[in-house]
Amino acid sequence: MNRSNEGTPDRSIVSGSDFLHMAIDEAPSGGKSEWLAQQIRLALADRRLPVGSRLPATRVLAGELGVSRGVVTEAYQRLVEDGYVAGRGRNGTIVVSAPATTTAAKPPTPASPSSRRSVFTTEPGADVFDAIRTTRARIDFSPGLPDLAAFPRAAWLRAERLVLDRLATSDLGYGDPRGTPALRMAIANWIARNRGIRAVPDEILIVAGTAQTLTLVGQVLRGDGISTVAIEDPGSLGARQHLHNCQLDTPPVAVDSEGIRVDELRATGAAAVFLTPAHQFPTGVVLRGSRRSELTHWASKSGGLIIEDDYDAEHRYDRPPVPALRSMLADSVFYAGSVSKLLAPALRIGWILAPPKYRDGLVDAKRFADLGNATLPQLVLAHFMESGALERQLRHLRRQHRRRRDTMVKAVAAHLPGAIVHGAAAGLHLTITFEAGFADTDVAAAALARDVKVHPLSWHCQLPRKPGLVLGYAATPTTDISEGVATLGEVLRRMS
Amino acid sequence: MNRSNEGTPDRSIVSGSDFLHMAIDEAPSGGKSEWLAQQIRLALADRRLPVGSRLPATRVLAGELGVSRGVVTEAYQRLVEDGYVAGRGRNGTIVVSAPATTTAAKPPTPASPSSRRSVFTTEPGADVFDAIRTTRARIDFSPGLPDLAAFPRAAWLRAERLVLDRLATSDLGYGDPRGTPALRMAIANWIARNRGIRAVPDEILIVAGTAQTLTLVGQVLRGDGISTVAIEDPGSLGARQHLHNCQLDTPPVAVDSEGIRVDELRATGAAAVFLTPAHQFPTGVVLRGSRRSELTHWASKSGGLIIEDDYDAEHRYDRPPVPALRSMLADSVFYAGSVSKLLAPALRIGWILAPPKYRDGLVDAKRFADLGNATLPQLVLAHFMESGALERQLRHLRRQHRRRRDTMVKAVAAHLPGAIVHGAAAGLHLTITFEAGFADTDVAAAALARDVKVHPLSWHCQLPRKPGLVLGYAATPTTDISEGVATLGEVLRRMS
Repeated sequence: MNRSNEGTPDRSIVSGSDFLHMAIDEAPSGGKSEWLAQQIRLALADRRLPVGSRLPATRVLAGELGVSRGVVTEAYQRLVEDGYVAGRGRNGTIVVSAPATTTAAKPPTPASPSSRRSVFTTEPGADVFDAIRTTRARIDFSPGLPDLAAFPRAAWLRAERLVLDRLATSDLGYGDPRGTPALRMAIANWIARNRGIRAVPDEILIVAGTAQTLTLVGQVLRGDGISTVAIEDPGSLGARQHLHNCQLDTPPVAVDSEGIRVDELRATGAAAVFLTPAHQFPTGVVLRGSRRSELTHWASKSGGLIIEDDYDAEHRYDRPPVPALRSMLADSVFYAGSVSKLLAPALRIGWILAPPKYRDGLVDAKRFADLGNATLPQLVLAHFMESGALERQLRHLRRQHRRRRDTMVKAVAAHLPGAIVHGAAAGLHLTITFEAGFADTDVAAAALARDVKVHPLSWHCQLPRKPGLVLGYAATPTTDISEGVATLGEVLRRMS
Repeated sequence: MNRSNEGTPDRSIVSGSDFLHMAIDEAPSGGKSEWLAQQIRLALADRRLPVGSRLPATRVLAGELGVSRGVVTEAYQRLVEDGYVAGRGRNGTIVVSAPATTTAAKPPTPASPSSRRSVFTTEPGADVFDAIRTTRARIDFSPGLPDLAAFPRAAWLRAERLVLDRLATSDLGYGDPRGTPALRMAIANWIARNRGIRAVPDEILIVAGTAQTLTLVGQVLRGDGISTVAIEDPGSLGARQHLHNCQLDTPPVAVDSEGIRVDELRATGAAAVFLTPAHQFPTGVVLRGSRRSELTHWASKSGGLIIEDDYDAEHRYDRPPVPALRSMLADSVFYAGSVSKLLAPALRIGWILAPPKYRDGLVDAKRFADLGNATLPQLVLAHFMESGALERQLRHLRRQHRRRRDTMVKAVAAHLPGAIVHGAAAGLHLTITFEAGFADTDVAAAALARDVKVHPLSWHCQLPRKPGLVLGYAATPTTDISEGVATLGEVLRRMS
């Protein structure tokens, strides 16, 4: 062994011979330098060569490996350029930094591996929906999902093939931040047919779902000096969190059997309001005509702005949906739609129609957010909408969801005789309230212990309310619905 | 004709008989009320029934249409609930609002239909890249695109079929805001193989491209009280705009032949710096080992943070790429990668590895931004990476791009004898500088008038520099490259 380059104790010597146990035979001919550099990088990464150690002299290592000295010199030069080693004159070549060490790759873990209990016993934070999503339960009544098993996979793949066949090369580059013209046109037609809204494609901005709508609209409103967006109470916790995150206050405004109390809205002095008029979340109330008139008056007199989340308007069972507020109040309404309840939330596609005054600002916000949605899924969806496939899917879902709703309504009547059912005429969920001396979070926790997942109504309330549960039925088979509601009945009887 | 409900002049009477020229035969049996309500909504929308007009009395219209009075009463009730009409006692039923009118749907227009000249004669604004993208030119040297004609459409569709076959139903719901486990694992393996970075999937956050990375990191840094991110000069105008949009100052730091001047960086007092170490944009300089050491020193002594945009690091022609800074400085580096230069910008998929301290905050920012990327394209990409298809694509691109680079270097030597070529050893573009008494924006404008699109170097400079052009070659066929550079030569000769 050649130990002629004896160093100080904190600079342990690494010398040739079996240096790193390298097998030079493995090096590709013509690529020996890079191979050698890479072997040393690996040794740096796993700390076989710690920072402060000295590499063998080039002459020595070349001799030991049976390569020309130039091969070693070039490998060292690459490591110098990497910044891993530095020449220190007569002190030789020293390791000065190393790749980050980590343990070997292991499978990813859930974002919020909460315990089953803690999700309901702590104040819901920004990650509450991750926490409840990753909490396992045999029967899942989380609201907000359509029947995902009905996702038309074969039709989606067929549409994707057509899109890939017809795609222009330039469609693969950076695109219009507002979305592809084809999808904006398809959505203009969809909302005209289904939601009574007349709009030209240039008024439509494609976004990554309603969560992004709230963040972009929140930014634009803040930029316009607005600091308060009133929200319905009960009202979506998720929407409230998103608006809060934009530094917006969200004073609660009560919802009664006719919808939001516009007199109370006026009293808050808020410049804007977040609404779910077609099927209020979570109560299911449809905003009545008289309230619509009051809102119109509020918007025109005070310049009030409305964020209309039309999240499940297409899902009505008894009669066609009421038209969107946007159809009457184009100058005051930010209209938010998405395919999360029509196809799948995993697609992350939604759309905004903004009041003309805010349109350009919203396009700028979308550009800064992500330069625009991905192109291929937009084109597939456009094909889906224009070919009638989405309408077929909606008809199929309506039948399926209606069966499941009927099952749940019957099961609630049978197993939860004291409960009042709200908002079952439409949508993907219903809400029950009950008289009780305990918190609905405790009911939810007890249900989860029995393998049934529900949202406590109180999550979606800022004002004191009767306890209740929000029960999604659309994504759950009927046998599970009956069984799950029976379990809820047992849970409530035991707690009473 | 029944004109018994004579009104005031501003409330024109609409009476029965041929009211709206409705053909009741078209109404579905059992759906007459909704059909009638819909006919009236359409008439409201196109102003055949203006606000203030009065609907025919129910008895009258029922008689004229030959339907029961209940059908008309129910249709009117729906319109009341819509908020379009209101009962006014003896004054009848009055139109009080109407759906928004728009002109008939027309094809969408470009986001920024700038004139050819204005794109180079005005200060570049937030929409400058939209403006130049939508400006037509026969030969396009805009930098930042790989050869999009090489996008592996058939392989992408095959991977999509596999993904759709194997997908769990729950994968179609809301997902982990950090991205799918499969893609985070595939990226951990990709960056270990190609960029010398060891990371576990939990350290990786999937985002919608590097534009989103900049916005999310900017938000997190602002939230941590940081107000300044130094940037290279020359350096990416787009990155600078994104950081500005997060209310961050971006003092310029000069780049010389060894990379960023770390002494100047230190002098700015900035807490963070945005860097393109592997192939500096736009000069193409590779950050040298000595500068890497200085940066390491700066980061460890002053707690400085680095945003490392590794945008085209995989595209080297002469030797393997240098390792990422992240591989040495995991605690200080936000590492940004994407597939925009490997596959296509239209996919909008990228990834961030953050310093541990900022990881949770970045996940929160991504959740509020859009709840996480769409699932299907992530799974297709994961399959692409793990199957070796992406490495095959990269090898194909390297050969293709190298040919195009060689053509451009030769053409510049032939047609632009006074120009100096920078950064041709890697990447998707090169930069030329020249001695001239005129602005490079004027050269770009003159080239555009001759149907050749280029970026003026001055767009990417905050400090005074020699005029130059940034010339993307990767997406342009060789014959167009030769012709386009010849045109640039003529343009420069005429201006000199």
